Amino acid sequence: LVAPAESDRLRVVLVRTRNPLNIGAAARAMSNFGFRRLRVVNPFEVAFREARSAVGASDVLLAAEQYKSVAEAVSDCALVVGTTALWHRELRHPLLQVEEAADLIREKVRSGNAALLFGSEKVGLSNADLSHCHRVLRIPTHEAHASMNLGQAVAVCLYEIARSQPPESLEPEAQLATAEQVERFTETLFLALRLSGYVKPGSEKSTETKVRRLVHRVDTSSADMDVWLGMLRQIVWKLKAEE
Amino acid sequence: LVAPAESDRLRVVLVRTRNPLNIGAAARAMSNFGFRRLRVVNPFEVAFREARSAVGASDVLLAAEQYKSVAEAVSDCALVVGTTALWHRELRHPLLQVEEAADLIREKVRSGNAALLFGSEKVGLSNADLSHCHRVLRIPTHEAHASMNLGQAVAVCLYEIARSQPPESLEPEAQLATAEQVERFTETLFLALRLSGYVKPGSEKSTETKVRRLVHRVDTSSADMDVWLGMLRQIVWKLKAEE
Repeated sequence: LVAPAESDRLRVVLVRTRNPLNIGAAARAMSNFGFRRLRVVNPFEVAFREARSAVGASDVLLAAEQYKSVAEAVSDCALVVGTTALWHRELRHPLLQVEEAADLIREKVRSGNAALLFGSEKVGLSNADLSHCHRVLRIPTHEAHASMNLGQAVAVCLYEIARSQPPESLEPEAQLATAEQVERFTETLFLALRLSGYVKPGSEKSTETKVRRLVHRVDTSSADMDVWLGMLRQIVWKLKAEE
Repeated sequence: LVAPAESDRLRVVLVRTRNPLNIGAAARAMSNFGFRRLRVVNPFEVAFREARSAVGASDVLLAAEQYKSVAEAVSDCALVVGTTALWHRELRHPLLQVEEAADLIREKVRSGNAALLFGSEKVGLSNADLSHCHRVLRIPTHEAHASMNLGQAVAVCLYEIARSQPPESLEPEAQLATAEQVERFTETLFLALRLSGYVKPGSEKSTETKVRRLVHRVDTSSADMDVWLGMLRQIVWKLKAEE
């Protein structure tokens, strides 16, 4: 995750947003991923008022700053990145993948401010808006359904920026079952199979080999193997008791 | 992007969703990233009807399949991945990062079906829901604002699955056991445990959950699972015969 001082150097800028739910959704995604500086440019006035007065409006939304132009909204930013999900736009800008743009932004906010611009629900960012951008990122949507919901687009971009880099596994390597545990399990299983009549007379050797191979193909943690063995022992006990 | 035949092997499963807007948003994100198989489990009925009858309801939404239980909704899936944005949950599952889960899913859908589960807006997936999951992914939100909007969570996960390169796994993987096979094995194992006295009176529910989790942590091929089930059935038969 991006350090707090750095994440406060990213401004999320919503340009001419119409729907109050989308402004709220953008603010929520910002809170989720640790960003706080929301700026709105010429929002549909009613939408912005509604979003701010909604029950549970977030701190991010309440602290949002309103601007009359993109130029003003990005004036303190050394890097301005526009967003698009469209395919057919004539863009003078080289299109970046989201992760490339995220790298640029993370680097920039170490020393200065950056802005990430999202256009209106209907038409996205205009050419005039884009003229304020140093770079444009494209979210890789399918051509037939290219246009994303605004709140979802914000979430995807901020997820990518906040995502720790490089990804490290959260999964602690579970200690695998030892060969000794596996062998004990195999023997107990074979005993259960004999007691239950699974093993046909004369096929003891081949069945045992088959069972051993089967058990060895299973990857299990040492802790889980103890549980399996405990279960099997109880079953064997019962099968013996009733013999 | 994931090839069409493969993307159709991913089922997005929404469990007990309350808000029709969220069902619509999930469907939209699916269209954006090229996924089409939406399943809903016990949605708030009115919500589901509203979402489907909304103007502009997508093909994905109109083709959504409705289920009465998580078990049914994932029965044809060999990999079931749950989602959470929470920090403090006591999870027995190892938590995966989104990109790790995405790798697993992309690999899985080359030969079988996978399911990605999202819980209700208020409480997410329950422990019972999670007991059907092989793995759980956590979207890396900030602790103070951990809970994501459902539609945004779906967008982030599907973006990640559609985004990255397919992992170059060279050998065609053995077909993994389906959720249905795993469920049948779990039920048979539980029966054997009851018959053998392993299950203490009054602990049926908790033991069943424990057993289901244990079985889900095991990676087994479909062919091997058949052998395991055959063994277990013989044991159950014997335990019953001697009762």
